[in-house]
Amino acid sequence: MTIDPTAPPPDLAAIQDAASRLSGVAVTTPLLEAPLLNDRLGARVLVKAETLQRTGSFKFRGAYNRLSRIPPDERGRGVVAYSSGNHAQGVAAAARMMGIAATIVMPDDAPAIKIRNTKSWGATVVTYDRAGGESREAIGARIVEETGATLVRPYDDPAVIAGQGTVGLELAAQAAAMDARPDLVLVPCSGGGLAAGVSTAINALLPGARVMVVEPAGFDDTGRSLRAGARVANEGGATSICDALLAATPGELTFPINRRTLAGGVAVEDRTVRRAMALAFDSLKLVIEPGGAVGLAALLDGGLDIAGRTIAVVCSGGNVDPALFAEAVAAGA
Amino acid sequence: MTIDPTAPPPDLAAIQDAASRLSGVAVTTPLLEAPLLNDRLGARVLVKAETLQRTGSFKFRGAYNRLSRIPPDERGRGVVAYSSGNHAQGVAAAARMMGIAATIVMPDDAPAIKIRNTKSWGATVVTYDRAGGESREAIGARIVEETGATLVRPYDDPAVIAGQGTVGLELAAQAAAMDARPDLVLVPCSGGGLAAGVSTAINALLPGARVMVVEPAGFDDTGRSLRAGARVANEGGATSICDALLAATPGELTFPINRRTLAGGVAVEDRTVRRAMALAFDSLKLVIEPGGAVGLAALLDGGLDIAGRTIAVVCSGGNVDPALFAEAVAAGA
Repeated sequence: MTIDPTAPPPDLAAIQDAASRLSGVAVTTPLLEAPLLNDRLGARVLVKAETLQRTGSFKFRGAYNRLSRIPPDERGRGVVAYSSGNHAQGVAAAARMMGIAATIVMPDDAPAIKIRNTKSWGATVVTYDRAGGESREAIGARIVEETGATLVRPYDDPAVIAGQGTVGLELAAQAAAMDARPDLVLVPCSGGGLAAGVSTAINALLPGARVMVVEPAGFDDTGRSLRAGARVANEGGATSICDALLAATPGELTFPINRRTLAGGVAVEDRTVRRAMALAFDSLKLVIEPGGAVGLAALLDGGLDIAGRTIAVVCSGGNVDPALFAEAVAAGA
Repeated sequence: MTIDPTAPPPDLAAIQDAASRLSGVAVTTPLLEAPLLNDRLGARVLVKAETLQRTGSFKFRGAYNRLSRIPPDERGRGVVAYSSGNHAQGVAAAARMMGIAATIVMPDDAPAIKIRNTKSWGATVVTYDRAGGESREAIGARIVEETGATLVRPYDDPAVIAGQGTVGLELAAQAAAMDARPDLVLVPCSGGGLAAGVSTAINALLPGARVMVVEPAGFDDTGRSLRAGARVANEGGATSICDALLAATPGELTFPINRRTLAGGVAVEDRTVRRAMALAFDSLKLVIEPGGAVGLAALLDGGLDIAGRTIAVVCSGGNVDPALFAEAVAAGA
């Protein structure tokens, strides 16, 4: 169950194969455009509304693609995953569809909506203290040892990366249907699985487009690693409302891909993320969770040169507790 | 500019013609399904997310179809519309796309977001006092007389009805692609244009499905008129948070259609509408305005026999002020 760093990275064919498995199972999420939003930002903005995916985030794609490859004789032993919440729901939902038992290891401070929904999908939830004690990896490893379950990693798995890459496959086709040629594609980043999959698809299908990751300030390990040319960890001590984007380091499999495919990374402050959530409420009618709104936040931030350009933004999830959402939209964009 | 009650009602061909004009212009809004929502309601629920339409409601469809038929030599005199807000934005946006000047007559108590967005589309907004003084119809007639502008009615116009009917055209095709056969289609209703268009399309394409309208309690003029067999007005004195659904009587053109095509109407209380908004936030990640959420409210209400059935629900708009939305989601479903 160790990661095989020599595993070949998924290519366009692997992503297309994932898309065929997800056909009729995952939602083909819309690529939305709001002219008043374009006016405000001075750019043509295309929003990939992955908030509308099954389980409320893109994570269902990678989870389903991975689970669909577990040999029938191993399915009876179940699957186990560790997750701050969206991967948890993706694995739990895919497991229910395939009749596989799922055990999910989640931090006890995960948003209530994420824990509740994971249980609603029929998964067994094991919580741990994010601040100390046994690591989630150690808990996952122990369960695998005891039960023989298949570990479904959140990002360091070629089948998971390929599944997430179907977001980019759809985005490229939908942009073409709208006569749009994105100059830039912005992707939220934690462990880097979504970024690796989407950038692989976009680089193959839209050679003129650059793909950049967006991370919360203080958790910009991928952006800093890209600049350093090697995996570096966050310095620690930071906090963020972007609960989905708190991975400490880039993934072992994802970083070598992202180093090759990405044009860079930017970091955004929580206050800008809140404004982005209010903007999406107002102009797109989308419920976006903090970690899903970092791409829009990067456009509001003013640090990117977007004037007159076409920007595609992946809004990756919408699982946010009501109080936080209400506070953000009431404050306005 | 009087309504011609002998005008033939739009048929499936008229709706298909509208769809061809809207192709590449309007959003093909997704038909969403959330398994956890199905579990909760004990039915298969398909949500037509018209909240994601340009301008945040279905009204853009009818407005664009109508404006596209104004002869070129009449476009220079502009268009005028009266509207509580969503038709206003639909007309204003369609007019901007065609380079036509738009004047919109709106009640001064319309949601701020609706007035602001209508102005953002470049329209001239004239407000009036909903409670007294000159009627919106009279103000509209005066502007038409003074300027020679084309009046774009919110529902009593065959081209508007046909445009709204494209919602039903898409819904039927999307349900088929999901292997779903709706037993029932629920449509929010004010003047009845959306209901007339959608029911015409659904009756032609899904002969097994019944179409029912949902209205706010106290504003259930269409449901009462269906039962009476003739157009009756609301009794007056009621209030509702469903600002988009406050028409006093069924339309002159829409009611004869709806009398033939609809299976009935139900009314929902504001408190159930708020719960429906919270439910959509939680399980669908959609921002739905009160009037757009009445179909989901009817499912929560318990008055319809939905157990084990497949129900398609048109969620017609998402233009809601932040304070009202925040209050509804914080209270929960």
